[in-house]
Amino acid sequence: MIHILWDKPAVTVVGLMSGTSLDGIDVAIARIEGCGLDSQVELLHYYSRPYEPVLRERLKSLCTVEYSNVALVCGMNSFLADRFAEAVHEAAREAGMDMGSIDFISSHGQTVWHIPEADAYDLLLVRSTLQLGDISVLAKRAGKPVVGDFRPADIAVGGQGAPLAPYGDLILFRHPDKGRLLQNVGGIGNCTALPAGCSAADVFAFDTGPGNMIIDQVVLVLTEGRASYDEGGTWAAQGSVDEALVSEMMSHPYFLLAPPKSTGREVFGKAYASAFIAKAKERGLSDADIVATATSFTAHSIADGYQKHVIPRCRIDEVIVTGGGAHNQTLLRMLADLLPEQSVMTSESLGFNDDAKEAVIFALLGNDFMNGISNNLPSATGAAHPTIMGKLALP
Amino acid sequence: MIHILWDKPAVTVVGLMSGTSLDGIDVAIARIEGCGLDSQVELLHYYSRPYEPVLRERLKSLCTVEYSNVALVCGMNSFLADRFAEAVHEAAREAGMDMGSIDFISSHGQTVWHIPEADAYDLLLVRSTLQLGDISVLAKRAGKPVVGDFRPADIAVGGQGAPLAPYGDLILFRHPDKGRLLQNVGGIGNCTALPAGCSAADVFAFDTGPGNMIIDQVVLVLTEGRASYDEGGTWAAQGSVDEALVSEMMSHPYFLLAPPKSTGREVFGKAYASAFIAKAKERGLSDADIVATATSFTAHSIADGYQKHVIPRCRIDEVIVTGGGAHNQTLLRMLADLLPEQSVMTSESLGFNDDAKEAVIFALLGNDFMNGISNNLPSATGAAHPTIMGKLALP
Repeated sequence: MIHILWDKPAVTVVGLMSGTSLDGIDVAIARIEGCGLDSQVELLHYYSRPYEPVLRERLKSLCTVEYSNVALVCGMNSFLADRFAEAVHEAAREAGMDMGSIDFISSHGQTVWHIPEADAYDLLLVRSTLQLGDISVLAKRAGKPVVGDFRPADIAVGGQGAPLAPYGDLILFRHPDKGRLLQNVGGIGNCTALPAGCSAADVFAFDTGPGNMIIDQVVLVLTEGRASYDEGGTWAAQGSVDEALVSEMMSHPYFLLAPPKSTGREVFGKAYASAFIAKAKERGLSDADIVATATSFTAHSIADGYQKHVIPRCRIDEVIVTGGGAHNQTLLRMLADLLPEQSVMTSESLGFNDDAKEAVIFALLGNDFMNGISNNLPSATGAAHPTIMGKLALP
Repeated sequence: MIHILWDKPAVTVVGLMSGTSLDGIDVAIARIEGCGLDSQVELLHYYSRPYEPVLRERLKSLCTVEYSNVALVCGMNSFLADRFAEAVHEAAREAGMDMGSIDFISSHGQTVWHIPEADAYDLLLVRSTLQLGDISVLAKRAGKPVVGDFRPADIAVGGQGAPLAPYGDLILFRHPDKGRLLQNVGGIGNCTALPAGCSAADVFAFDTGPGNMIIDQVVLVLTEGRASYDEGGTWAAQGSVDEALVSEMMSHPYFLLAPPKSTGREVFGKAYASAFIAKAKERGLSDADIVATATSFTAHSIADGYQKHVIPRCRIDEVIVTGGGAHNQTLLRMLADLLPEQSVMTSESLGFNDDAKEAVIFALLGNDFMNGISNNLPSATGAAHPTIMGKLALP
């Protein structure tokens, strides 16, 4: 038997998250006592560092079959680990903390590809997922043990390797009397249903579809690269929604699939956004209309997921929006209009640091690895059983 | 402080190796007592499983910039882990061992790219290396802890991430009175110099250049895919060597570099072999002459490396050839002719199972990780200091 021993009752963990938006690195320095559902977590400091444009462009290329290759994957795996290590040092400095007070790092890595279902036409394209940012390189550069690369373990036990955040949502947001829906709007949108007084088996979760991914790509194309997102949703607020086009987009087969389900850039990426823009222009939409329509499609895909797959199963009182999309006021307003029976709010209004949430969750997942307990949520990922996700590299 | 505890004085480890030849998976089941230079290792069983042609072809594509992409890397990382797990189960079955008697697995992974020096023209192509065969997937499938993916850690501390075998060569082959050169001839050729009575700091090692890589590719092209290597070196024995062409090939700048140095398919791969075949045909060489010339070039690149970089530094009495190339009698004869002052022999003649050697060495590296001790050899890789290589995934 192997035992990983940690000789402290509470640990200081750096959680690292880089989302499918490819916008940068989120760092949460957290104090964690206990483990599993009994974890008590306190956020000590949050730090964020955007990717510079040249890195972002390379990552976007890496996320396409056309422009990626093995050399770019190889180099980026190390390059990102260096960046992650820099971000850890910067976060500690900004927090006024000595690196000596940090026990370990827990890193999600940068997702560049995700194959939740085997390819029917290529027997070698099996279920798999690829996160870059080598944990050995990060461990050596930061001088700390690193746990990371969690998703492949869940895929190996029959899960989709996503979503992983619901496990953290359960720890952080479960409520004895209120049914809550946690809606993260990153590149992809994903929701976690936490019925009132729920335990692990009651939680369910799925990717609702695109989060900011289509809106961001539309803004990037329409501004010819001068802007990469619709800040505060102000551009969308100036346009009119083409409801017919939204209805047509809602016929995408992904929205009919029953949870658990996950999706990514392979489905709602650049190619999808390009086709959408072309169709919108054909229909004579102005730029603001196109952004408004992309935003409305995103809101509909979220609300529709609830109506189809959540509300028939449990009462929901509150919808708590997190992730970059929580700053998009137009998206929030559209969601509130589509969900008249629920209170739509951001996690900030509950006293949580919204931006830090996913990074905090990965700190929790790494802490569970170190404690040798399972950290996946089969009800969310579809895995056959609970398992210990993650890999460990030593400094 | 983190402690990985193992509650046994001796462990049964499965070492897995897949070389740059892309020929298959080598499995060594070994009993190891102690760790580091004091490791006592006994080979319990050796098993080998070739890659089937469709997998081999896909891997070859993956090892090119032109035909690889992120989806193929993602899928292959999981696919190979499944294969590795099957190979572990098959090896245990063939050995008549219960899986319960195996403590853990140590896996090299399949190298698909290696960037030992940063690209001067692309700042994002940093020093890095990419081995596929996800250790989490392998751990879940085999139901055992897995240590693996060793090379990135050495690169992170300034090494070339290769060669790693010299550390094992030191443990297995050092001799109090004889200066020995271990020459592995896999896809790439690499040598380890073990001066008489050496300690870790005295060992040095480097990739001599191509191993079987060019010979294999030449045979594949000349037989239009009907054979993938020159069995026993019999084809080369029927041809005449074009000495002038060999001399010209020996002017490749790699051979002038001082060790530590490493190379790979990026330099001596398909493109190099194609250019060689074209030039050989231009000069009117027969097929047998071309194979003989490729074999002679390989022998010269090895012997030349010794003359330039080893023999000026220490006395060498024995050259011990291991790897697939040890079965190539023509290559052995050419080497003996070029090295009249040394005895050229195979490790088999010393009672070692030649084919199992690299897999046994990776079992040793994994055992050191589990014992929390460094397992790289800075004198061989150029690393700034000793470090613990490897990552751990739990079943």
